Amino acid sequence: MYRIGVDLGGTKVAAALIDENNRILNKISAPTEAEKGNDRVAENIAALVWEICRQADIKPSEAERMGIAAPGAIDSDTGYIERAHNLMMEHYPLVEKVRELTGVSDIRIENDANAAALGEAVAGAAKGTSCSVMVTLGTGVGGGFVIGGKVFSGFNHIGGEFGHMVIEYNGRQCNCGRRGCWEAYSSATALVKRTREVMEENPDSELHNVVKELGKVNGRASFIAARRGDKAALALVDEYVSYLCCGIANMINMLQPEVLCLGGGISNEGDGLMIPLQKKIDEAIFVRGINRTTQVRIAELANDAGLIGAVNL
Amino acid sequence: MYRIGVDLGGTKVAAALIDENNRILNKISAPTEAEKGNDRVAENIAALVWEICRQADIKPSEAERMGIAAPGAIDSDTGYIERAHNLMMEHYPLVEKVRELTGVSDIRIENDANAAALGEAVAGAAKGTSCSVMVTLGTGVGGGFVIGGKVFSGFNHIGGEFGHMVIEYNGRQCNCGRRGCWEAYSSATALVKRTREVMEENPDSELHNVVKELGKVNGRASFIAARRGDKAALALVDEYVSYLCCGIANMINMLQPEVLCLGGGISNEGDGLMIPLQKKIDEAIFVRGINRTTQVRIAELANDAGLIGAVNL
Repeated sequence: MYRIGVDLGGTKVAAALIDENNRILNKISAPTEAEKGNDRVAENIAALVWEICRQADIKPSEAERMGIAAPGAIDSDTGYIERAHNLMMEHYPLVEKVRELTGVSDIRIENDANAAALGEAVAGAAKGTSCSVMVTLGTGVGGGFVIGGKVFSGFNHIGGEFGHMVIEYNGRQCNCGRRGCWEAYSSATALVKRTREVMEENPDSELHNVVKELGKVNGRASFIAARRGDKAALALVDEYVSYLCCGIANMINMLQPEVLCLGGGISNEGDGLMIPLQKKIDEAIFVRGINRTTQVRIAELANDAGLIGAVNL
Repeated sequence: MYRIGVDLGGTKVAAALIDENNRILNKISAPTEAEKGNDRVAENIAALVWEICRQADIKPSEAERMGIAAPGAIDSDTGYIERAHNLMMEHYPLVEKVRELTGVSDIRIENDANAAALGEAVAGAAKGTSCSVMVTLGTGVGGGFVIGGKVFSGFNHIGGEFGHMVIEYNGRQCNCGRRGCWEAYSSATALVKRTREVMEENPDSELHNVVKELGKVNGRASFIAARRGDKAALALVDEYVSYLCCGIANMINMLQPEVLCLGGGISNEGDGLMIPLQKKIDEAIFVRGINRTTQVRIAELANDAGLIGAVNL
């Protein structure tokens, strides 16, 4: 049994053939070329789909179904991308277009963060759970919520915007227009911004050496300098972990998922992130002394989560 | 068809016979007497159940089933009250005890805020929706989340603690030990506390006259003084509504319920609360320009929501 997964990003689109055990058989990718128009994006997806099928010696229409993970506000009922800034799409019938170009009749679509959450729930860090949440710490803070093997994203399919939960009233300016959103504290972007600020305030900090070694300021710099015992970096990591804990404890108090998994670049820090984070979470959650509490884990599927989630929609 | 609903509170317990159309046929109540021991509470529930059944000329065992709404951390799988401070209960098998005393075999139990959310979803302000959230603005800020006619409270049944979502990092002290919880801003208790503070800071405010008329400081005082044009009260109501909006917009961004209903004493303010609140919510929610957005409504069932929810578990 073959299922076709598509992960559509702002700059790159990937397609994969995935078997019934959620193993990726082959995977290829190409530029999205969003700037060349909405139809061009659909054509690029179709070309990738034909190519992976050709490699497996089947026609796309012989696949059991296709699933697409895409950014932005997606209407999974109608198959329209309602609004995706980085794809320059608004109310675009992507599913219909890809169906015409590939002949695959059963095509499902979901927001990429929701699809990744589903991927982790069926084959990754939240496998075997009755309900789970995934939080992605990347350019922004994205998320997805899975209950009983299905994505829950509200009645209009645009929920799961955990990054746009205000955790500091009148706090840091967020791109969405509100102030104090979790994303403005816990995204990799936010950490990079704070790292620059801390470097400026601390000209003697080890951060300067680390950044020279890395060749740039990124989300890893503060963690590396902290491991070397740098005071300014230790304080910065503590600040970052405290805000991250704030949002995670909020999610646990509200939703009590069996597993909450963390994805995105920052989650690669492993124990350097997870040990202080878990300590703070234990102190912050509302109900203590109950033996069954949410397990916070690092996501396992990395970039394949969206593809695997897409074919399990 | 008769179903028996029980609403167990810290000071009072109510029982009702409810028909298949969710109409309450008769309802009686009595003191909980939690201070007389866990078994006494179960006996008081049983006595009420026998009495309403006697009035309807049936035996409890002839009822289709019983549902209990109770405060605290409830394990709806096992029927145990795991932890309820105001009932002085810890790991108490309430369902089993009430079954022994009444002979009703099918007894279900749920946290009272969750049961109220279900009540509003089946017969109140969220009737006919696919998913809804209820937020209760009372002594604390409680809540419940209903999807497809079922309460969702996480894998361990202790979710829905929306009041313990931090909206102001390092903000006001909350009873739960954290700082900045929504409950510390949007509960009636918080509004009363702020009203006292504003009165002290503004000896000429109309608030003083209003409180004299009411005989006490309560959640209504600031709204009444604001309607009379008092500046300090207007600022206080604006502050209260802003924090309330903050938490509600968070919930919408994350869960996108079809309806979010507001219960508890403060919700009785009607348009004086809802008109400024809706204006702020429209500005705060993440995705604008999508035609289907969450409707925020005042709850309809008042004190009966828990009873009606309980029989629909």
